[in-house]
Amino acid sequence: MNEPALDRAAMEDFLRREYPHAGFNDGRLALADYARGRCRVLLPLDERNIRPGPSVSGPAIMGLGDVAAWIALLSVIGPVPLAVTANLTVSFLRPAGLADLACDCRALRVGRRLAVMLAEVSRAAEGADVAHMTITYAIPDGAR
Amino acid sequence: MNEPALDRAAMEDFLRREYPHAGFNDGRLALADYARGRCRVLLPLDERNIRPGPSVSGPAIMGLGDVAAWIALLSVIGPVPLAVTANLTVSFLRPAGLADLACDCRALRVGRRLAVMLAEVSRAAEGADVAHMTITYAIPDGAR
Amino acid sequence: MNEPALDRAAMEDFLRREYPHAGFNDGRLALADYARGRCRVLLPLDERNIRPGPSVSGPAIMGLGDVAAWIALLSVIGPVPLAVTANLTVSFLRPAGLADLACDCRALRVGRRLAVMLAEVSRAAEGADVAHMTITYAIPDGAR
Amino acid sequence: MNEPALDRAAMEDFLRREYPHAGFNDGRLALADYARGRCRVLLPLDERNIRPGPSVSGPAIMGLGDVAAWIALLSVIGPVPLAVTANLTVSFLRPAGLADLACDCRALRVGRRLAVMLAEVSRAAEGADVAHMTITYAIPDGAR
Repeated sequence: MNEPALDRAAMEDFLRREYPHAGFNDGRLALADYARGRCRVLLPLDERNIRPGPSVSGPAIMGLGDVAAWIALLSVIGPVPLAVTANLTVSFLRPAGLADLACDCRALRVGRRLAVMLAEVSRAAEGADVAHMTITYAIPDGAR
Repeated sequence: MNEPALDRAAMEDFLRREYPHAGFNDGRLALADYARGRCRVLLPLDERNIRPGPSVSGPAIMGLGDVAAWIALLSVIGPVPLAVTANLTVSFLRPAGLADLACDCRALRVGRRLAVMLAEVSRAAEGADVAHMTITYAIPDGAR
Repeated sequence: MNEPALDRAAMEDFLRREYPHAGFNDGRLALADYARGRCRVLLPLDERNIRPGPSVSGPAIMGLGDVAAWIALLSVIGPVPLAVTANLTVSFLRPAGLADLACDCRALRVGRRLAVMLAEVSRAAEGADVAHMTITYAIPDGAR
Repeated sequence: MNEPALDRAAMEDFLRREYPHAGFNDGRLALADYARGRCRVLLPLDERNIRPGPSVSGPAIMGLGDVAAWIALLSVIGPVPLAVTANLTVSFLRPAGLADLACDCRALRVGRRLAVMLAEVSRAAEGADVAHMTITYAIPDGAR
């Protein structure tokens, strides 16, 4: 019961096939760690994400958290494309600066119709906290 | 006292000069309405923002809200580049689908050190609510 | 279709009968305005809610918003006691001080399984904004 | 530098003297663990906090998180009564039911003007997660 609902190779295949634009095909994102209800996704520094400061932009950080938390959710409920973000709250803790970022996610609660996920973004090399996100997903009927 | 801290032409000039990547230079974003503490920003449909669904992506919607609310803030406090997002909460109400989006913002409270802004994203043509966002900005010392 | 799912007298009876501790029986709360998807609830100043400052306490303000938004939700979906709060975000805008408070609520989105409600708390006499709340409710299966 | 800004006895004295209504005088709340940037506060089951379900009420849970996170903040910045809640987000994970609750808090970021605290509420006996809260405090000028 602690195995993920789809294994790592199946998850990576699902992401590349169904979400070709997400960035897992071309190195913009990478799945580092992966287990049931948990994952770590990397966002290498990319000039398209840089804003004055200079720093990785807020939307890039929010997008990282959203995709990572969604992968951690699918590791529990399986490949349900229609699990949609209902609510997202982010607190920005420190400027990201110009750094590769990592997002560590875990499930706080996966219910039948709602899931609440935690996503913590940090600078990958130092572990310095950049953002704390709580994301609620609505799960379609019959998915569980 | 109801005049914006910088007028519309000055704001557009500031955005283009200081934030060339934000999208106001090349039509990815457009400032539709603008007054002290309020604005409306348009996000025309752009295939780079589309995700499976298909729909304009969540990060594109959050990015729209963040930049629009920041413009509404600057209309009160003036061109303070270092006003940074401390906290952002978004509730997604309906899928954006494939549509031009509009974001209407207003200041809920602009204090000396913190500002709370409201950003409501809708489909521009129909006015259908897509997302409701509340964003808190930290204002640097001496800016006010 | 713009009639509330239960009329005002039925709502007040439901609150008093099923939620005797909520405060509608003994004047701690009062339903001022009421329509489908909207309501205004009053919280008269009560020394039990005062904290150093002095001011009406944060938990009293959050409790007011939660009950008022829940009433506005029930005005759409009917008396479903098991609609539960999934997520609540509050931004405190100004100190409440020592004042009667009012909470104006409206539905942002009432779906089949989730509802998102807006609750705005102000000083009743002046209309000064005290808090802005966004509340997500999970609606039990079969309720709609 | 890992000592709290005021030691445990001083914190308990401060709470009882300055916040007599908070509940630390009469057993409604108890400070269980306490260190710099961290604490655990207990909320024993009290019939005044029960709502239909039956369960400890949402406002009681939010109030617990707010006071506990504020204590964890003061353990870093010292007894600054005017540190005020700017923003609070709570996700309710499971019904509290009829149980003693515990709230574990830690600082995510304590800056000069803003602090972001994490508060996790659980059933004290089982450790079952009840609520996840992120709270932003505004710190008055000169306090740090």
